[in-house]
Order: sequence, then C-alpha cells, then structure tokens
Amino acid sequence: MKQPYSIGVDLGGTNLRIAAYASGREFLDTVVLPTRLELGRDQVVRDMAEAINGLMARFNPTHQMAGIGVGSPGPLELPEGIIRNPPNLPGWDGFHLRAAIEEQVGVPVCIEGDANVAALAEWQVGKGLHYGVESLCMLTLGTGVGSGFILNGRIWHGVTGMGGEAGHIQVHPYQGAACGCGGFGCLEQYASATAIARMAREQMGTQAPSSPHMLATMAHAGNRQAQQIFEQVGRALAVGLTAVINMLNLPLCLIGGGVSDAWDLFAPTMFAELRSRSYVYRLTEPTRCICGEALQTRIEAAELGSNAGLLGACLLPFQAATSDAPSTGVLARA
Amino acid sequence: MKQPYSIGVDLGGTNLRIAAYASGREFLDTVVLPTRLELGRDQVVRDMAEAINGLMARFNPTHQMAGIGVGSPGPLELPEGIIRNPPNLPGWDGFHLRAAIEEQVGVPVCIEGDANVAALAEWQVGKGLHYGVESLCMLTLGTGVGSGFILNGRIWHGVTGMGGEAGHIQVHPYQGAACGCGGFGCLEQYASATAIARMAREQMGTQAPSSPHMLATMAHAGNRQAQQIFEQVGRALAVGLTAVINMLNLPLCLIGGGVSDAWDLFAPTMFAELRSRSYVYRLTEPTRCICGEALQTRIEAAELGSNAGLLGACLLPFQAATSDAPSTGVLARA
Repeated sequence: MKQPYSIGVDLGGTNLRIAAYASGREFLDTVVLPTRLELGRDQVVRDMAEAINGLMARFNPTHQMAGIGVGSPGPLELPEGIIRNPPNLPGWDGFHLRAAIEEQVGVPVCIEGDANVAALAEWQVGKGLHYGVESLCMLTLGTGVGSGFILNGRIWHGVTGMGGEAGHIQVHPYQGAACGCGGFGCLEQYASATAIARMAREQMGTQAPSSPHMLATMAHAGNRQAQQIFEQVGRALAVGLTAVINMLNLPLCLIGGGVSDAWDLFAPTMFAELRSRSYVYRLTEPTRCICGEALQTRIEAAELGSNAGLLGACLLPFQAATSDAPSTGVLARA
Repeated sequence: MKQPYSIGVDLGGTNLRIAAYASGREFLDTVVLPTRLELGRDQVVRDMAEAINGLMARFNPTHQMAGIGVGSPGPLELPEGIIRNPPNLPGWDGFHLRAAIEEQVGVPVCIEGDANVAALAEWQVGKGLHYGVESLCMLTLGTGVGSGFILNGRIWHGVTGMGGEAGHIQVHPYQGAACGCGGFGCLEQYASATAIARMAREQMGTQAPSSPHMLATMAHAGNRQAQQIFEQVGRALAVGLTAVINMLNLPLCLIGGGVSDAWDLFAPTMFAELRSRSYVYRLTEPTRCICGEALQTRIEAAELGSNAGLLGACLLPFQAATSDAPSTGVLARA
C-alpha cells in the first residue's frame, strides 16, 4: 500500500510556498515562488496550480494523494473558501479561492486561515505534540498579530469562521491606537512588527531605527528607549494573555512570528505582568505551582518557525479526513 | 418504566436551595433553607443532605434517581469537587464537598461551578434551546461577575477547572480598580452590583443611593450621574465582550444576574461600543448583517432569572451521563 501524502500551500502577500508532505516535520519537496499579485488573482492561482500539478506528477506514482491544504490570509468564509476583504490581497474580495484552485488541479482542496494552520502545525508536530496537550493558543507576531486556537483537538472557528482573533483583544481600550479592525488599542497595535516600528517612531523620533530587528539590536546593546518599547510589547501581551488564560485556562500558549525572535527582550515583562494580572496563570505557573505537569499553563516560543504555516497547510487534508464534526459553535442542520 | 429525575442543589452564601427535577423548566418540588455558615461546613452539608434525603424518600418510589448535581461557589477542583479559597465561604478551603455529600446521601454527586451550571441551564432549557446553538457564553452580574462557557455542547473547564472567567478580563488594564483576583481593572470591578455601588460612592459622594436597585430608580427618573454609571457598566461590558466575541465568535452571549434588570440603562451604550470595537460583532449583528440567522451574534438578557443556577444543578447528572469526553483541554491519560 502506498504511503499517503498531501500538498500544502502557504499563500503569503510576498511568497507562495508549496510543499509535498508525507509525515513528521520534513517535506518531500518544496517550491517557493513570488506571489505575483500585480498580475491578478487568476495568475496567482495558475502559478499555484502549476506547482501543485508538478508535485503531483512526481509523487502520485509512489504515494497516495490525501488532498490539498491551503493556508490563506483572511477573513475567510469556510468551508466554502471565499475570501472577504483581505487587507493584504487587494482585489481578492469575494474570490472563491477553493473553487478556483480545485478547477485547475482536480483534487479536493481545504482552505483555512493562515494563523489557524500555524496553530494546527504547532499542535500536531511542534510543541503541542511534545507536551501532549489537546488545546492550545498560538499567537503569530508578524505584520499583524494572527492567532489560532485548537480546542479539544480541533481548530476553533466560531460560527462564521471569524473566531480565534486574540490579536483584537483590546489591551489599551480607551486611549489606544486605532486599529485596522475599527477597534481601539488592540493587541495587534502593540505587539506586531508594524506596531513596534510605529512605537519606535513615536518614542524615539529621528533616533528610530528602520526595522524591529535593528531596534532589538539597539536594545541588546543597552539602549534604554529601545528596551522600553519591548517592555511595552511584553505588557500588552500580558493583558491579552490574561484574557485568554482566565477565559480558557489552556495548557499551552505559543508565541511565534518574526517578533518572537526578540523573546528575551519582551518575555521578562510579559511573565512579571502576567503573574500579577492573571490569577489562573499565577496558580498554574510551571516553575512555581505545585500542580502536576499536565495542569500547568505553559507560555513558550513556538517551535516550527517560518515553516509552521506551510506544515499546517500540509496537515489540513489529514485533519479534515479524520474529523467527524465541524468546530463551528452551531448545530449542524439538515 | 419510571421517569428519571434528579436532585439539584444551589449552594449560595445566603440560601441553600434544593430541588427535585424531572424535565422541562419546572421543578417537582423545591426546598429553600438558610445557609447556616456560622454553624460550620459540616452542618451546612447535614442540612443539605437532610433535604436531599427527604426529596428522595418522596420521589424514589415513583421516579428513577439519575443523580445529584450541586452548583457551588468556586474555585473548585474538578471532578473531585474540592473547594479552593472560596471568597464567599470562609473556612471551606480544601473541603471535599463531593465526598462529604456522597457520604450522607449514598448517591453519586456531580459538583460544578455556580456560573457554569447557570450557563448549562440557559443552554439546555433557556435561550440556548430557543436558538438551537451549540455554544454560548453567559455572564452573571451579581456580587461579582461570574461566567460560564458552553463550547460545542459541553461546559468548558480548561485544564484545571478554572476556565470560563470572563469576569476577569481586564477592561481598564492600567489605572483600573484593584480586583480581588489580584488583577487590575477586571470586568468584575465595573459591571457587578458591588462595582456599581462603589462607582456610585466614588462619583456621587453623599448623593449615592444605598443599592444598585435605587441607583437604577434614580437613573430612570432622569438623574444624569446615575445614568452615567450605567453607561460605564455598558462600556466595560463592551470591552469584555469584544475579547469574548473576537476570540470565540459565539452565536449567543447571555447576561443574567441582578444587575441585568437594569438592561435598558446599560445596553444602549454596550451595543454602541461593541459595534465600534468588535469587527466580528459588526459583521454579524442580528439587525444589520446580511448573514443568515444561524451565523449571527446575539447578545441578550438571560431568560431563567434566579432559577438558572438551581435548574443547571438539576441538569448536571443528565449531562454527565451522556458525556463521553471531559472538556478539559488535556488528553485523557492511561
């Protein structure tokens, strides 16, 4: 019997990454293409389909095709896979992404939000596997703050597929920065790479470096203003995580994305604030609580790095095949 | 075949209510006793057991006993039913409530947090039944702000049973009032009866009425300061619900407890703020969105009033009998 394999697609605003995957944490093969947004969505789908068909031509003879998974920027209408007002894919509003891909590859496609597939990967083959948990939250600190929740072994979608948005918990609810979502003081405005660049401009003026990475270098070299910006990131994460942990009492919260490279700069403030703000965290903190390992609240850096999204897309077809109930929050209706 | 029935207990700091229950929203019979905390926890359990045994003597001949459910103030260790540092039951820390009751009644007992049983009742026989949803959040605005989550048809406990605490989302994270939980600016400090009384004292000085109920009467009579306090309650609820709705995209959030009687005073501000703060709510608001009924986010007053806790306790044994997996967030281990 041939080994089952899947193909995953990580549809980013800059790169289009496609991989064939059989099991574990390694890919059978990977294709990386530029996302040619300037040529229109149909061309992007053609580029994607060509890479998928190429991988299928190579692996179908030796492996059993399990399906194709796509991690896409949102918001998405699921399971139809229709894109709604995506801030990073102008002109794609209302696009039936799933149908467009299926038409060109002739294989069933599962679509899922990019933050959700990253959470799925960390759960199935990353730290979630390591700790044996059934539930976790993953925050991806990048251009925005994406987030995904696995609850009792299933991606949590909510009723309209818009669930999981911990990046839009309001951590500065009153005088906070306006957010692209229409809210005020969302976590995304204090913990994303974009937010860090804005805070640096606001607080350092002409001294502000051109990137969060350079700001981290300045902070490591002892620049106090730079250090304080990462402390603000840590405080904002603590207020957001307090809401997550007090509401859901999850065993594992992972922080990934480019900003998480600055873990040592924001984590000490994050943990100190979390300890004072969340009694659930305080009672279950791994190094201090007397509860058993399985009952602790671990907050750690994610493990899979920039591969989390692509791996999660590859895992989607297998997840879909074994699931018997949608995690939507509404009753399935006849 | 005899109809199954259960006995439920609502263990409050003031009253001990015990009911026999068969189905629907009505009790077979109800017993209300004072909670004689001054005589110690053993006496309270003896009072409870006496009432339970009396009901069993009456209904066992005609009905089939399904079990006993108890809604208790928390925090609780579940399913053991051990009480941990309960603020309203001094001297009960570490008490094995389940074992103590079982010893005197000879029937299996299920223990659950009081806010969780209220959520269970609203889900099974209140507005959750009416709308046919599988998930909901219920906030109980009383002495504190209790909350319970039903996710995909199960009470959400989290790994240590401490989940569901939306009352401790921080809605004034920086200059907010210190909370009994150790946090700052928790929703409980801005939307409970206790908080309303405190805000009235702070903002109205000697004009402050002696109860939230009288404050509501003043607000209805046109007192602007009194009205503004309820507007602050509405704003705090909106910030808290924004976190809940953006994270979980639930189809139904219910607000119960004594403060919910002032619905008309806080709800207009709550809805206006929620519409501006939560894009998930904005896109799914019942009166404005174009999505189908099943995809809307309804925020409504709870339906069962002060009976929610007692009804939920009665429903617990039936819920426990049909569940095949704990909603704990951790894998069951051999």
